[in-house]
Amino acid sequence: MRTAFILIMTFHLFLVAMKIQAQNKDVRQFDVFEVSMKGPSAGNPFKEITLSATFRFKNRIFETEGFYDGNEVFRIRFMPDEPGEWSYEIFSNNKELNGRKGNFTCLPNEPGIHGPVRVRNAFDFGYSDGTPFYPVGTTCYAWVHQPDSLVQETLASLSKTGFNKIRMTVMPKNYDVYINNEPPFYPFEGSKERGWDFFRPNPAFFRNFENRILELQKRGIEADVILFHPYDFGKWNLDKMNQDQATFYLRYLIARIAACRNVWWSMANEYDVMGKTDEEWDKYFRTVQTYDPYRHLCSIHNGMKWYNHSKPWITHLSIQSAYLQDIQDWRELYKKPVIIDECVYEGNIPSDWGNLTPQEMVNRFWISYCRGAYCTHGETYLHPQNILWWSKGGRLYGKSPERIAFLHQIMTETPMEGVYPFHNVWNKETYLIKENEFYLFYYGNSQQAKARMNLPDKIKFRLEVIDAWNMTITPVRGEFSGITEVPLPGLPYMAVRARVVK
Amino acid sequence: MRTAFILIMTFHLFLVAMKIQAQNKDVRQFDVFEVSMKGPSAGNPFKEITLSATFRFKNRIFETEGFYDGNEVFRIRFMPDEPGEWSYEIFSNNKELNGRKGNFTCLPNEPGIHGPVRVRNAFDFGYSDGTPFYPVGTTCYAWVHQPDSLVQETLASLSKTGFNKIRMTVMPKNYDVYINNEPPFYPFEGSKERGWDFFRPNPAFFRNFENRILELQKRGIEADVILFHPYDFGKWNLDKMNQDQATFYLRYLIARIAACRNVWWSMANEYDVMGKTDEEWDKYFRTVQTYDPYRHLCSIHNGMKWYNHSKPWITHLSIQSAYLQDIQDWRELYKKPVIIDECVYEGNIPSDWGNLTPQEMVNRFWISYCRGAYCTHGETYLHPQNILWWSKGGRLYGKSPERIAFLHQIMTETPMEGVYPFHNVWNKETYLIKENEFYLFYYGNSQQAKARMNLPDKIKFRLEVIDAWNMTITPVRGEFSGITEVPLPGLPYMAVRARVVK
Repeated sequence: MRTAFILIMTFHLFLVAMKIQAQNKDVRQFDVFEVSMKGPSAGNPFKEITLSATFRFKNRIFETEGFYDGNEVFRIRFMPDEPGEWSYEIFSNNKELNGRKGNFTCLPNEPGIHGPVRVRNAFDFGYSDGTPFYPVGTTCYAWVHQPDSLVQETLASLSKTGFNKIRMTVMPKNYDVYINNEPPFYPFEGSKERGWDFFRPNPAFFRNFENRILELQKRGIEADVILFHPYDFGKWNLDKMNQDQATFYLRYLIARIAACRNVWWSMANEYDVMGKTDEEWDKYFRTVQTYDPYRHLCSIHNGMKWYNHSKPWITHLSIQSAYLQDIQDWRELYKKPVIIDECVYEGNIPSDWGNLTPQEMVNRFWISYCRGAYCTHGETYLHPQNILWWSKGGRLYGKSPERIAFLHQIMTETPMEGVYPFHNVWNKETYLIKENEFYLFYYGNSQQAKARMNLPDKIKFRLEVIDAWNMTITPVRGEFSGITEVPLPGLPYMAVRARVVK
Repeated sequence: MRTAFILIMTFHLFLVAMKIQAQNKDVRQFDVFEVSMKGPSAGNPFKEITLSATFRFKNRIFETEGFYDGNEVFRIRFMPDEPGEWSYEIFSNNKELNGRKGNFTCLPNEPGIHGPVRVRNAFDFGYSDGTPFYPVGTTCYAWVHQPDSLVQETLASLSKTGFNKIRMTVMPKNYDVYINNEPPFYPFEGSKERGWDFFRPNPAFFRNFENRILELQKRGIEADVILFHPYDFGKWNLDKMNQDQATFYLRYLIARIAACRNVWWSMANEYDVMGKTDEEWDKYFRTVQTYDPYRHLCSIHNGMKWYNHSKPWITHLSIQSAYLQDIQDWRELYKKPVIIDECVYEGNIPSDWGNLTPQEMVNRFWISYCRGAYCTHGETYLHPQNILWWSKGGRLYGKSPERIAFLHQIMTETPMEGVYPFHNVWNKETYLIKENEFYLFYYGNSQQAKARMNLPDKIKFRLEVIDAWNMTITPVRGEFSGITEVPLPGLPYMAVRARVVK
């Protein structure tokens, strides 16, 4: 279908007088280059005006769609991934918009900007420039659908943590007693009562959404954007799009935000609760694959029913489960990274998915990491105004975030390559290995009085006892080889790290 | 084969002069009636003299084997299960032993003696007389293979707990640094160096073993007798019996101890570690089925490989696993009771199967129970003389036993019939239900500030908050129906029990 558009557009070769404004004439690598143009508003410009562009760098060509932003403004966005001279050409079924060509210079990225996150070494993540990315995520599903004061508080809270990924829904959320507020904007024209015109997106809604993504970007946080979710329960019926409407919505959203380097696609939360067929989900995945020229990370999050993560569009597993002992099996089965995006949350609400102790939340992060996966945080403490971090953001009250940041530090000190989780048939032990070089043994909620490790003979190691809860790293005096015993305090959440003496 | 024995023996119809002594002329129901006889010791009387008996009560006939007990003494043991007049007839290929007939009076059981434990209501246990039996077991694999002073200490420790089942091995045990002492007796004639004569059992060994079982019986403790185990590791080679030898050993043991009402058969511990074929295990199960006239409870305990518990000789699942969320699935699949006979142990040793906190040990008991299973305790605290309860017995140092006894009290207060564990596709909640009558909600290691329960409308319930760790039961003032919230202290290991107002 997209190829068809381009073929149609190539018939409009002559330039007409128009009001196109190319902005950001010079753009930084991995930032957003945008072309905005005046165009017609008659009829339904969202649907009736087709708009796309090709962007060229040397032998490389990217195709991307533009979108109508209201008020007679059309925009095309693009994220260049290499410094140098880029050119572009615009195609539309509208004569005023069609045929514009241009070029711009992409300057090297600012220090600290590394581009989109990709899969690295089969089971891990790294930015486009190869810098490792160790996801330590949190969950604030509907934080963008809260009043601005609360949104600012959420951003301020995030800045104080080490979280570098956030799970967030495009659509507003209605769930149990905890969240049922009207959002500041609705995604489409219409209303619940009159019905929604799913072919008329509300630009203000999406502008708000993409600005929040850029706010995250400034803070180095990846936006794990949840495209569909089942938490409407008849409040807005925004989950009632048919397949054409849903595909239109996906293309519109992709046109707006795919150029943001920190976007990840999470096709759905608890996808199986939505009652769609596998074929329908396949169609939406293909839509994302077709219209996202950057191939952002893409996953789907299960409820009670497992997804076939072997499908080609799945870049990594986004799992809901507390069966962390299965992580190594999932790695072996799919050969993809595993993120435990919900193992339930730190909090004290009555719902059984929201009352982990902070100790157990931290424990699950460590278990996940030492079994070769990554874990995601959420927080659900009862709150007088029902502002639970997990849904609305606001303030964090828990004790796990700083411990999770401590674990992130441990991750950055782990060798970048060749590390794998121990995996035997008993599968009780939890540790990472890089043969003859690095070992990270984690002892979970046990109370063992000493650690017994089977280090290689004839190679000297230095040891450190790590207290995952108290966030201390204590070197053990001496150098060790072979079967080694180290006293531990007999308290839970201890680890021992062995690093070869160089 | 057994039928063949009996056929052969029926040719010896005439009585010869002999030295048979019938003991326990009058016996209590569920106690052991024993016939002892003098006989020849030439050759190998263990193997060469066949001995069996039929015991009759009205229309019921039981067949049982006798055994050679050394010093020219042969014995036949039998446990009558009904009061009244019983008769018996003895068969042997030895003329002196063959053909003896006798009778005895079985008196009603003493108060508090309920007979062997059976499966009750598909998923539960009860004694022969219908009294419910709620297993709360412990593990002292090799306690009978310790010096008598230590054995007495073990028995004294057991008497102070609420444990009513103990897992114990017939053969001595050699495992890691924790247990490798020589036993006071060896089960066969011979030695590791000269080799064992597996067809010449050592009566002193078995006498010691059965006396320990009777000591347990006095204390109301079921002996979960582990017939084979893989923990020899070349120390004695007692695990090196061929199939004929193993079958002979099973028949000898059954002849000696099956008449003890508190015997359960556990075919093997970590059966899959022993490297036998399924066919070989099948043969041993059939041997037990053939020679145990009482059909004692019978199970097999897995290591890393699951057993097909659908096989007809399996009365209940004896599971090693910490995947307690799967319990309801196992119930549904096999329609048999589930005992989690190892979910690892309370202790502080470095091995990952021996360092649970007492809190977590108790938690696993509660989870197992509220998911419709029973759990088994073990204790592995480092000890200056290496006397770890799990293997050698001795003293208990942990904090879980008294909490497990508290849970046993809760079990006895649960309705005897019609209770089942909640089981939905999410399978996160842990509670027992008897519709409209009884609910036991368990909240595990969560820290929820209140419980929210969906009780039936229009039926009044009284509630109690149970603290599984501090062993308190606190009634909640008032009566409740429908969706009900109860404040909790925000600490782990809480439960709420709802009982209908009568």
